[in-house]
Amino acid sequence: MEAAGSGSLGLGDTQPPGTARPGAAEGVVPMKRNEKEVAKEGKSVGFVLVHAGAGYHSESKAKEYKQVCKKACQKAIEKLQAGALAVDVVTAALIELEDSPFTNAGMGSNLNLSGDIECDASTMDGKSLNFGAVGALRGIKNPILVANKLLSEAQKGKLSAGRIPPCFLVGEGAYKWAVDHGIVPCPPDIMATKFSLSAFRKNRRKLELAEKVETEMIQTKKRREVSENTNVTTSLDTVGAVVVDHEGNVAAAVSSGGLAMKHPGRVGQAAVYGCGCWAENTGGHNMYSTAVVESTLYEPCWQGNVQWPYRQKMLTRPYWRLCKRSLFTHISRLPPGAVAGQSLAIEGGVCRLRSPIN
Amino acid sequence: MEAAGSGSLGLGDTQPPGTARPGAAEGVVPMKRNEKEVAKEGKSVGFVLVHAGAGYHSESKAKEYKQVCKKACQKAIEKLQAGALAVDVVTAALIELEDSPFTNAGMGSNLNLSGDIECDASTMDGKSLNFGAVGALRGIKNPILVANKLLSEAQKGKLSAGRIPPCFLVGEGAYKWAVDHGIVPCPPDIMATKFSLSAFRKNRRKLELAEKVETEMIQTKKRREVSENTNVTTSLDTVGAVVVDHEGNVAAAVSSGGLAMKHPGRVGQAAVYGCGCWAENTGGHNMYSTAVVESTLYEPCWQGNVQWPYRQKMLTRPYWRLCKRSLFTHISRLPPGAVAGQSLAIEGGVCRLRSPIN
Repeated sequence: MEAAGSGSLGLGDTQPPGTARPGAAEGVVPMKRNEKEVAKEGKSVGFVLVHAGAGYHSESKAKEYKQVCKKACQKAIEKLQAGALAVDVVTAALIELEDSPFTNAGMGSNLNLSGDIECDASTMDGKSLNFGAVGALRGIKNPILVANKLLSEAQKGKLSAGRIPPCFLVGEGAYKWAVDHGIVPCPPDIMATKFSLSAFRKNRRKLELAEKVETEMIQTKKRREVSENTNVTTSLDTVGAVVVDHEGNVAAAVSSGGLAMKHPGRVGQAAVYGCGCWAENTGGHNMYSTAVVESTLYEPCWQGNVQWPYRQKMLTRPYWRLCKRSLFTHISRLPPGAVAGQSLAIEGGVCRLRSPIN
Repeated sequence: MEAAGSGSLGLGDTQPPGTARPGAAEGVVPMKRNEKEVAKEGKSVGFVLVHAGAGYHSESKAKEYKQVCKKACQKAIEKLQAGALAVDVVTAALIELEDSPFTNAGMGSNLNLSGDIECDASTMDGKSLNFGAVGALRGIKNPILVANKLLSEAQKGKLSAGRIPPCFLVGEGAYKWAVDHGIVPCPPDIMATKFSLSAFRKNRRKLELAEKVETEMIQTKKRREVSENTNVTTSLDTVGAVVVDHEGNVAAAVSSGGLAMKHPGRVGQAAVYGCGCWAENTGGHNMYSTAVVESTLYEPCWQGNVQWPYRQKMLTRPYWRLCKRSLFTHISRLPPGAVAGQSLAIEGGVCRLRSPIN
């Protein structure tokens, strides 16, 4: 098991992402596109960045992670090219990430202490600044779809009798709202995968062992020290995406199954306003549009060059792989010797988006 | 029904709170305490500010609101004088506010669309920066007690097998955690009061009427315009408190039954990190300690004078009442002609806390 994170970006007049970490530029594939090529291709329809989560996972699954990032990016690009707005494009990307059994979101999420899957997700529209979120949601395959629906329903204005529409729903109430709004429920046992069930069984054994060792006679401090040696294994962290659409609107979305063996009802930052994601169009006092998701930060400026500092925690040896002309897939790893959870890798890149005026 | 909010503050070398709103100083009761009097009384043991919520409520209940604020303040002062730390003092104040049938928190909270009470609460400790919160919690009389317990349990460090303790729990999971941690459950029907049940029945009739009027044939925009005339009645907003203890630590806590006729599972800002409350001790880069709750802002500086800008939304005609030497109770109202929901009253005051060094 190693610390890893994977991400993908597509469209725009992409240039090779560099790395802000000294001496960590190995494996970067440069891509230069000349002006003629850009002009021939016609207008840029936007920009997509997705990530499949930072955290510990097997090296052997690197291919799958890159594949799911690529697929999510492609789905989003299709939506962008069809003229969809950022807030819906970002949802399309997230659905692909949630549907993958390899990510800790939607299908195959970490199981909680009771062996159930409870998901968090949120999305923000940079144009309206509206936000939609769900927490500790069971029995829905794509939590991001509920978050998106909450956002879009709130944009319609007040409910009957002047009631303020909800933007953050949790638990059973969130499930009922989703079903009432046409989202098809999913039997909980379908959402658990072979991998997530196996991880749960291993974690449960570790927990039983730890609690056996930690007898009532041992003082709290001592007990906690002992337990460090039998820590539960946690899967990948949150997945997320940021998008710029053809109008220059930004949107962000994030989704997570949360911590393995978490207490039922626990809500993590993926569902929390201002924590899991943020999106804000340029305008007024904002010189730049901003779209941020957990583990990733993307700050585009529509007029001129775009800079996207790409932050991930617990990553090793970065390398870049060119999938197709405007689509990169990348797994970032910490350098040898760096301790996961105690080290931070910061990477950045520049992506040029053409102004809609030109 | 009028827009109103009520608050109370106690202890410290209090000076009369002024008002930052021009021409709104009527009814202010000045209190000057000379240095001899202060010296005779001995050391200052801290500072407490509580508020019972901003929102629409009957003028006739003003006495009850002031009474509950005073009681909450007194309970907190007793705790402070017994040497309790800010994070526990603020909880003691909130318990009194929640126990009052007149506030929209704990007992007598607004009922949701299903006729149930689901509460939000959170607390933050300025010393450790730890945070505890519950959302959409049913069947617990004092939601703040669960938030405080989550905070204090998290301060003990990791759980068995290296699991990260939860700081934000919702719904059924939150209820089970609370009961497992010794908090006595409360039958939901006990929490509803005569007033909250009567309001629910009225609101349900309004909703039925609104939905009858809003036929499927009417377009969304038109429908929403019609519904404005039959809006549901909502009770007082969030209650909250901020405290400075004898060590100069700050803490904040907030609790709310949420919007009347809200969708089950809706979580409001009272439960959200960085939204409902914030507390941060001075130190490092912070020149001032800060403690903030919804509708109220309190920013004390331990070394020297203390300034506490007091913000409330939807308030009319401010007046100050001196309850006892160091305890003020105050209901703030918008001036005549100001439209509730569209106007903001800003008030401020200065309170001098003696440095622990002196």
